[in-house]
Amino acid sequence: LFNHVVIIGVGLIGGSFALGLKRAGLARRITGVGRGAANLNRAVELGVIDDIAADAGVYGEADLILIATPVGQMARIMGEIAPRMKAGAVVTDGGSTKADVAALARTHFGNKLPRFVPAHPIAGAELSGVEAAKVNLYEGKKVVIAALPETAADAVQQVRAAWQACGAKIYEMSPAQHDATFAAVSHLPHLLAFALVDDIAQRPNADQLFQYAASGFRDFTRIAGSSVEMWRDIAVANRDALLGELDTYLAALTRMRAQLAAGDGEALAAVFANARQARENWLASIEKSEPPASPDREG
Amino acid sequence: LFNHVVIIGVGLIGGSFALGLKRAGLARRITGVGRGAANLNRAVELGVIDDIAADAGVYGEADLILIATPVGQMARIMGEIAPRMKAGAVVTDGGSTKADVAALARTHFGNKLPRFVPAHPIAGAELSGVEAAKVNLYEGKKVVIAALPETAADAVQQVRAAWQACGAKIYEMSPAQHDATFAAVSHLPHLLAFALVDDIAQRPNADQLFQYAASGFRDFTRIAGSSVEMWRDIAVANRDALLGELDTYLAALTRMRAQLAAGDGEALAAVFANARQARENWLASIEKSEPPASPDREG
Repeated sequence: LFNHVVIIGVGLIGGSFALGLKRAGLARRITGVGRGAANLNRAVELGVIDDIAADAGVYGEADLILIATPVGQMARIMGEIAPRMKAGAVVTDGGSTKADVAALARTHFGNKLPRFVPAHPIAGAELSGVEAAKVNLYEGKKVVIAALPETAADAVQQVRAAWQACGAKIYEMSPAQHDATFAAVSHLPHLLAFALVDDIAQRPNADQLFQYAASGFRDFTRIAGSSVEMWRDIAVANRDALLGELDTYLAALTRMRAQLAAGDGEALAAVFANARQARENWLASIEKSEPPASPDREG
Repeated sequence: LFNHVVIIGVGLIGGSFALGLKRAGLARRITGVGRGAANLNRAVELGVIDDIAADAGVYGEADLILIATPVGQMARIMGEIAPRMKAGAVVTDGGSTKADVAALARTHFGNKLPRFVPAHPIAGAELSGVEAAKVNLYEGKKVVIAALPETAADAVQQVRAAWQACGAKIYEMSPAQHDATFAAVSHLPHLLAFALVDDIAQRPNADQLFQYAASGFRDFTRIAGSSVEMWRDIAVANRDALLGELDTYLAALTRMRAQLAAGDGEALAAVFANARQARENWLASIEKSEPPASPDREG
């Protein structure tokens, strides 16, 4: 049980975390912090949070603090939290990239660094306000905890317990492993989808082309409907891993181009067949382990 | 009204065409041709066709013939049809690429060439047997008629009428325009999705990576679940247009790589924002003009 939880950024991620903790009876009091007074007032009305912080003094009272803001705001927030934290308090975040957040924490938390637990809930990431918050957002979803070597084991344990109370399944890896993994299966596909739609949109005959785009194109490019600012920040924050993935993919496409130019249908078929089989195996494995995923935006 | 329609390949495409014509009262008799006796018998049981052709003599009796087989079988079939066609009969096809089909027709139809109407229904293309056929498969879907300069206007008009009776909307363009258009909005995305899944499946840590793939990855790669043989044939048949698209896309990715390497978040954001806006406009335009698309496989 957390006596006092403070959530900075009471949107989809932070608000749903608050609702999950409340349902589990794991938080005696939840205080919201944020820039949008209207959003915070609405969060109180909806019962997502109990009250609104008057100032940064609230950080001195908290047992658990979740920073659920864009990564760009975290340096300032960490700088406000660090000098005020009480002994034993735990701070965590919900950012989509982890090496950059870990580096910020190293800069700002000083000797409180062991109390900071970098984490990434894989379930929606658009900060679309508290109205979007759902008590069951995290049910069956993954949360990656990307602890530093310095992170205290009991702090990790408390963050695990909080997310598990929301229904999430906890996975652990280092910040670098996290960023390498998501560069491959999330960040690169987003870049590829944005690039394809932009490429077509730039053509003089774009309207004609879009007219014949069908359901395959729609699904392939769904992630190109994601938040521009968020994906800009993710791309820049995870630049090194993403460059590596992009280069590997460019090499794969270049091989495929050579097969196509040679009219080597059997080589292309081997790639297609391997992909099709791997995807089938993947879908079968997630069907076994998870309820059907809802099409939340990632990040 | 067609007195006698012959459909070669009574699967999803051919069977749904038969059902659509029957519902519209546009076909007095429909005869099925195909290699799978069990499938043809089932098609009769289901009332999709009226009877099964005994031999190629049936082509001499038909008013309208639909070749709904993989493109690889079309040369043989055209060679059987051409010498037997009666005056005024019309032949059309349902292949996913049109320049290659047009070239085959030019080779095999001789002085009957004006009676052949190349066409491509954009609604499902997996030849998964007559059980998959649906009377409403083509409702609100597009059919592209890709006539040759030689094609007779009355033959085009009959094929239009047949597809319109199935509920389809008819678009016309040349075979080369067709292939260029679908290279951009369908064939390239399929290659990109196959390449990404294959790329990840080849890694030593593929299982770990797939474990963290979420709904964005699932939708981006849905088309990598498509038929291997069909997409091999499409890629090879539309090689030239597809190479052009692949090169344009490789250039776009290479530009994006440079922006990423330079940490130029604003340049990336401009690409993302253009893509996001273009996709929103596209979705708004199809919502205005079409019922929601079902996730049929394309080709």
